[in-house]
Amino acid sequence: VAPLRIALILVGFGHVGRRFVTLLQEMQPALAAIGVEPVIAGVTTARHGSVFSATGLDPARIADRLTGPGAGQASSAPFITDALARLRQADVEARVLVETTTLDVRTGQPAIDHVRAALAGGADVITANKGPVAFAYRGLSDEARRAGRAFLFEGAVMDGVPVFNLVRETMPGVAIRGFRGVVNSTTNFVLTALEQGEPFGDAVARMQEAGVAEADPSLDLDGWDAAAKAAALANVWLDADTTPLAVAREGISAATAARAIDARARGRRLKLVASGTGQGPEADIRVALVELASDDPLAMLDGQANAIEVDTWPLGRIVVTQRDGGLEKTAYALFADLMTLAQRAGIRSIDRSLQ
Amino acid sequence: VAPLRIALILVGFGHVGRRFVTLLQEMQPALAAIGVEPVIAGVTTARHGSVFSATGLDPARIADRLTGPGAGQASSAPFITDALARLRQADVEARVLVETTTLDVRTGQPAIDHVRAALAGGADVITANKGPVAFAYRGLSDEARRAGRAFLFEGAVMDGVPVFNLVRETMPGVAIRGFRGVVNSTTNFVLTALEQGEPFGDAVARMQEAGVAEADPSLDLDGWDAAAKAAALANVWLDADTTPLAVAREGISAATAARAIDARARGRRLKLVASGTGQGPEADIRVALVELASDDPLAMLDGQANAIEVDTWPLGRIVVTQRDGGLEKTAYALFADLMTLAQRAGIRSIDRSLQ
Repeated sequence: VAPLRIALILVGFGHVGRRFVTLLQEMQPALAAIGVEPVIAGVTTARHGSVFSATGLDPARIADRLTGPGAGQASSAPFITDALARLRQADVEARVLVETTTLDVRTGQPAIDHVRAALAGGADVITANKGPVAFAYRGLSDEARRAGRAFLFEGAVMDGVPVFNLVRETMPGVAIRGFRGVVNSTTNFVLTALEQGEPFGDAVARMQEAGVAEADPSLDLDGWDAAAKAAALANVWLDADTTPLAVAREGISAATAARAIDARARGRRLKLVASGTGQGPEADIRVALVELASDDPLAMLDGQANAIEVDTWPLGRIVVTQRDGGLEKTAYALFADLMTLAQRAGIRSIDRSLQ
Repeated sequence: VAPLRIALILVGFGHVGRRFVTLLQEMQPALAAIGVEPVIAGVTTARHGSVFSATGLDPARIADRLTGPGAGQASSAPFITDALARLRQADVEARVLVETTTLDVRTGQPAIDHVRAALAGGADVITANKGPVAFAYRGLSDEARRAGRAFLFEGAVMDGVPVFNLVRETMPGVAIRGFRGVVNSTTNFVLTALEQGEPFGDAVARMQEAGVAEADPSLDLDGWDAAAKAAALANVWLDADTTPLAVAREGISAATAARAIDARARGRRLKLVASGTGQGPEADIRVALVELASDDPLAMLDGQANAIEVDTWPLGRIVVTQRDGGLEKTAYALFADLMTLAQRAGIRSIDRSLQ
């Protein structure tokens, strides 16, 4: 049996997108085992132009061929619409958008437009971007359902460590009562430094030098990143239909040091915790500095470790901890979502031949 | 479309088996959503006899109908073979063994015989028993593959918290370099008590009163339970083809108290850690008292909390922590495995109609 060819359109081609491409080659045995052959049909970027080939691009030559001015601040939706039309004309049946653009954490754009254009053009969508799931989960998942397409986003919250897939694939029938998590590496690193007496500015500068914090670290320090992740988790698990703008939000500053040092002196830890409880419109979703007992699984997280505790019936409280972060893990999240799609596509192709 | 009826044969009908039966009723919506209808066709026990009906038993009346002397120490394999033959004669296509018998931790029996009889009789197997996977994983999984049947055992190591399913269903293509875990509640509880100065015998008695430790707690205290779980994890993840008898094993005793207190005084924790590294016959699998730094995710586990850290490429180290244990969670593990089977059965029935 010939493998199922899956045409990928990559929107964004930064560190994560490029690592995803090399990971596909390294994961060739896993892909072959389920009978799929992903092909990169198109790549579009904000600053380096776009390339497209319905029959597939040579992965090693993509970077060299990206020479144009790019979409800039504009949406790449027109490129996506056009590329998908050309794939349909070429009778390429399995089409997937891989979305890794930079997020505007106050709007979720341009990623939301990209997802919408892909679903309208008959593509499944996988994204490592928290924008679409944090700002527009209900609408996009409805659109995906109507189009008979998938909308997957494992990398949005904890890189490649299974969070959404954990619940969806391995916990059938459970009810989720709430969640708590330490989900932002920059604030966690800075809080640990503050406890040890390091000045706030020094700790932030050290994170920037290490490449963990952005040049403008305010989105992390002010709790925006954690709020976007809280909204994403609440939208999927608590049916909250919210956005990061509606999340009760606290951040950290130089003034936090005294609280962190005081907590530590009493054997406790001050952590920036993203949490959600309740269901639907009544869900209580927040990012707040919380003092944790030393035996709390979230208390011992140092440096870049992240963790999410999900409270379920009937499994009680389960914690997933990511000890090692980084962009390679985010690239893996895209791969895991592609494998999920590929397995569903196998089922779909059986379905179709039954009709 | 009529739901797919799945006939279940329950071997063992203790706390876990009975909770599994009520859980099936509570999970009716999840079962209906994927179009399956499990029916309990047979139950066999060691001390209370057996019942069978190819058309299904009334769940509420099973306990009343179990009045015989039971299989005692003997295998229930003859009952399984006979029950499956009668289901085949009645043209019941989907047949599943649900195995929850008491384990002989030094042999893995009688569960291994039960699994083998079920596979030979054309049934899929789900078990909460660590015996088959700890002692005979390679042989049983080969038999299952040849028979075109599944052999699932999510509940064997950490109750219902996804461990095997986590890796199989949500981490496609990863390579596992090793694992470490605190997987035995009795020893973990006693170690915590010893650190606080409680005498060994008092702590053990308290666990027995709470129903966590067995009347004969030596299998826990001597590390046998942890060794069986280490062997199970190593067989599945490291292709170790080992048994608990071959696991380097340490336990806890009154003499452990001084070490536990000394570690705690230095801000560290003494834990009984099950671990495995390497691959195949060279895998190093052990249960040992290990002194952990306070920021180790395994160090903060108190009381009945369990956790397993799996070291993977490319996701690095991921920890899954179970904060709340208990038999309801083990019953859920059986349910989760049944859902996995049911989804595969759906695919199989599509396959069959294509032939």
